[in-house]
Amino acid sequence: MLLLRRCHSLTRFGPLNTQRHQLTPAVVLCAVRLWSSSSEDGGSYQRAHGPSWRHGLAGLLAGTGAVLAYGLHHHKAEQQDSSTVQTIEKTSAFPIISQEEVTTHRSLEHGIWVTFKGGVYDITKFVAMHPGGDKILLAAGGALEPFWALYAVHNQEHVLEMLSEYKVGELSAEDVKKQKTIKTSDPYSTDPERHPALHINNLKPFNAEPPPELLSDSFITPSAIFFKRNHLPVPQVDAASYQLHIEGLPGGVLTLSLEELKTRFPKHTITATLQCAGNRRSEMNKVKQVKGLNWGIAAISNATWGGARLRDVLLAAGYSPDVAQRAFHVQFEGLDKDVTGTTYGASIPLNKAVNEEGDVLLAYEMNGQDIPPDHGYPVRAVVPGTVGARNVKWLGKIIVSAEESSSHWQQNDYKGFSPGTDWDTVDFKSAPAIQELPIQSAITVPTDGAVVDRSSEEVTVKGYAWSGGGREVVRVDVSLDGGKTWQVAQMRSSEKGQAPGPSPPPGRAWAWKLWEVTAPLPAEAQELEIVCKAVDNSYNMQPDTVPPIWNLRGVLSNAWHRVKVEIREDDNEE
Amino acid sequence: MLLLRRCHSLTRFGPLNTQRHQLTPAVVLCAVRLWSSSSEDGGSYQRAHGPSWRHGLAGLLAGTGAVLAYGLHHHKAEQQDSSTVQTIEKTSAFPIISQEEVTTHRSLEHGIWVTFKGGVYDITKFVAMHPGGDKILLAAGGALEPFWALYAVHNQEHVLEMLSEYKVGELSAEDVKKQKTIKTSDPYSTDPERHPALHINNLKPFNAEPPPELLSDSFITPSAIFFKRNHLPVPQVDAASYQLHIEGLPGGVLTLSLEELKTRFPKHTITATLQCAGNRRSEMNKVKQVKGLNWGIAAISNATWGGARLRDVLLAAGYSPDVAQRAFHVQFEGLDKDVTGTTYGASIPLNKAVNEEGDVLLAYEMNGQDIPPDHGYPVRAVVPGTVGARNVKWLGKIIVSAEESSSHWQQNDYKGFSPGTDWDTVDFKSAPAIQELPIQSAITVPTDGAVVDRSSEEVTVKGYAWSGGGREVVRVDVSLDGGKTWQVAQMRSSEKGQAPGPSPPPGRAWAWKLWEVTAPLPAEAQELEIVCKAVDNSYNMQPDTVPPIWNLRGVLSNAWHRVKVEIREDDNEE
Repeated sequence: MLLLRRCHSLTRFGPLNTQRHQLTPAVVLCAVRLWSSSSEDGGSYQRAHGPSWRHGLAGLLAGTGAVLAYGLHHHKAEQQDSSTVQTIEKTSAFPIISQEEVTTHRSLEHGIWVTFKGGVYDITKFVAMHPGGDKILLAAGGALEPFWALYAVHNQEHVLEMLSEYKVGELSAEDVKKQKTIKTSDPYSTDPERHPALHINNLKPFNAEPPPELLSDSFITPSAIFFKRNHLPVPQVDAASYQLHIEGLPGGVLTLSLEELKTRFPKHTITATLQCAGNRRSEMNKVKQVKGLNWGIAAISNATWGGARLRDVLLAAGYSPDVAQRAFHVQFEGLDKDVTGTTYGASIPLNKAVNEEGDVLLAYEMNGQDIPPDHGYPVRAVVPGTVGARNVKWLGKIIVSAEESSSHWQQNDYKGFSPGTDWDTVDFKSAPAIQELPIQSAITVPTDGAVVDRSSEEVTVKGYAWSGGGREVVRVDVSLDGGKTWQVAQMRSSEKGQAPGPSPPPGRAWAWKLWEVTAPLPAEAQELEIVCKAVDNSYNMQPDTVPPIWNLRGVLSNAWHRVKVEIREDDNEE
Repeated sequence: MLLLRRCHSLTRFGPLNTQRHQLTPAVVLCAVRLWSSSSEDGGSYQRAHGPSWRHGLAGLLAGTGAVLAYGLHHHKAEQQDSSTVQTIEKTSAFPIISQEEVTTHRSLEHGIWVTFKGGVYDITKFVAMHPGGDKILLAAGGALEPFWALYAVHNQEHVLEMLSEYKVGELSAEDVKKQKTIKTSDPYSTDPERHPALHINNLKPFNAEPPPELLSDSFITPSAIFFKRNHLPVPQVDAASYQLHIEGLPGGVLTLSLEELKTRFPKHTITATLQCAGNRRSEMNKVKQVKGLNWGIAAISNATWGGARLRDVLLAAGYSPDVAQRAFHVQFEGLDKDVTGTTYGASIPLNKAVNEEGDVLLAYEMNGQDIPPDHGYPVRAVVPGTVGARNVKWLGKIIVSAEESSSHWQQNDYKGFSPGTDWDTVDFKSAPAIQELPIQSAITVPTDGAVVDRSSEEVTVKGYAWSGGGREVVRVDVSLDGGKTWQVAQMRSSEKGQAPGPSPPPGRAWAWKLWEVTAPLPAEAQELEIVCKAVDNSYNMQPDTVPPIWNLRGVLSNAWHRVKVEIREDDNEE
């Protein structure tokens, strides 16, 4: 029974539901894996990957007994990778068009044409509808393949169906032959290996989250299972030749090597939680479909970061308070780039960057080691209290500017809108770029659909709580009856069994709190609707329900978190 | 009809209800007053009070056409004042006790005895239940009268009933005679006159709020109708001899005269909204009774404040960054005091006080004039983004300290708790003192129970929105159907018709925004449930409903605000 109940927790990776008979396949799969794992003395994932994971996660796994499903991971990865790309039919009804002709259609005035697997498509009318914005124009007059290799989200049947509607011709055989000689190398082939415990939301670029029950086991999330949110391939950066450029200050451009960053500036260490703006998006998808990766509740993690203060580096580059008269933003550019050379970019307000209490780091350490490739090796921005998207990884350039970053991700993404705003009416200029995130909490244990035996008499509920802007979580309320009555959870801000550090100064509470409640099972209940809500020290609270905060990008999903748990009356079968 | 509908808006001062027939008396009263007011060329309240009000409010009143009910104000004031104090019965069944004997009972060990109107009461068992905390001990061994004169909240029948349960004797005739010769002068007799538009929640100390529809008419609230929240009598402060003491810094005590404060430090001006922690408490009272003044939605106002920066004064008094190694709070002491000499007090975090971007003022001007007596003449703290209670008025002393203020209001009041916490279980040490307030908004027009004629075809909804901590309001969503569908309101951050100033820097948006939506009346609806909710730039949102944020002190009431409006089909009677 214990095995069965633990395995239930994996079912959140499948469709969420509470009917037990539907859970059967997952339970069986889970049991098989548990057997295969234990029979091989630690499981195949440990053999497949290096000893660093084994070291970092040994205690973690012993503590949770969670099932880490390597097979599932590989299976899903392959599915997404090879995909459905071969399904477009050839038809001879279309005219033959030369690449030369295609190349003349690269403006809205002359039409936007692209080629894909030997077909020619006039996508002029589609440009305005493209979920990725006007980046689609980068492919104008040329082939889609290199872009789709980069954004694997396109490798889906409905995308191909949409494309087929715009077909206008066949590329000439000669040009097809030419195209084939330009080998499209996979820009993701050098991405690092990942821990098999991660649940993959997207393979290319890599986006994955840990199982919730692992998350709440460690106050400091091990780097290997820290959620990963990449927008582009992981760049290969050579630490010896790495350079960081700081621009826009009176001293001209300052260029620092990694060694200089480490030795010229004092090392500062903070423990800070990062959260993706899309964390818990899956709950918004249940209300009405949104655009974005279908994150569960674990696109959030907590780590200790070490590095130079951005403030110190800006001062060394010539920052003085009068700069703030003309400059209001600090832009970050990553070294990760797409085929056109466009890099990932974002910006933060200048006062966050230069304030002594802002604690913004140019971090080169994560949990006491070099930052791993997936998290920005060798240097990333850590902007505590601020949405993950501004914590730019593989940092190449810092620009002090009068303007926000002009990147797609700053201007036309990562913004919140009214539930009444749809893709026909949205004006991205009308909303501010997300910086500080609102109060958040979620239940990691038990998972939705779990079963509790009546004989256990009580239920233990665990979770995390965090707020943006350095606002400390001061209380978590937990309800077992859907929100009618509430009890206050116990919180901790250190590893289990360790004494908590001193309270953070006001406005500098960057780390989450883990919480726990053990309560008697209500005598009459056959099902529990467990709910949590957190309060921060500005007494902001989470909204009750999802629909009124629903937004077309599915960001900022911070309503009360709810899971349903079935109470099974004891029977005589065992 | 126009008159009738406007008068409806006054009914929120009575019990809130939506049934029209119950509103009749208020409507009649209102009509009578409107007649009497106009027949006397401006109304009696203008004659009764000086020309400054007439000047400040002329435009305001012309713009709203609101009815300002002077008679109502006076009637209620008298009711609260003369009250029910004479109702305790004499009985000869009790022993005669001397004042000397009473005086020996002033500790929990020996019992807590008090006298009231010739009776002797052993209140030992009541001490723990006293809503005002252990301040009740100040009366031990003596008479209650001077305390009750100060806290007029005691002048209620149920308080006297409670007291009568604790009666143990009659004070000796000789001692009663002695007591009578000590004339209890009313410490509130020198309180300033107030504007009759204010709705009085408590007369002594004075607590009052403006009618909501006046509130949303002015971006800057005229001082006369700015909500008043006094904890004690208004002190009489002589500007010429006024002294402000700054203690706890290496330079020793710095003492400044008003003139020095004005001339030694640059004058800094900010526009900042202040809100009482108890704003909208009446909505919590509808869920379950809480302790505190029954504020409507208007215990919030916006003004322009001028004064010296606290930061500059602390620097002049010897503050340097190393002080922050040992001190974490700045305490404020008011000059308002009770009969024992205990002054009003509160504290704020040191980093808010000294941060260049904290904008904390020692203000001597409100809306371009000397601060009026009710708002802290001659000097008050203005701590923008922070709950009203920390904006200490009639400022006498500033203490830089390792500790928070030890005052009742910092330690045992103005804190938030879980809805499951009651007076038997509350531990005031478990919650942080409220500082920054959460996101807030409310509908000022129309008021609950208003009637809209179908022929008007559309409805205009107005209100305010504000958030603490300098977080700018970025959106207000308005629903006419109870929260099912939403539209985005137009916001303004200046007086009507004036161009808004430049956007505040991040984290320094201290002023509210006024908002407005005009929408067609839904064709089928007979009633509208109008709802508003605001979003600030950390994307915090208001909770949906009141019960899950209910707390025993009724503070932090910031759920969606809801008003019901009846749509009347046109008929042939008019």
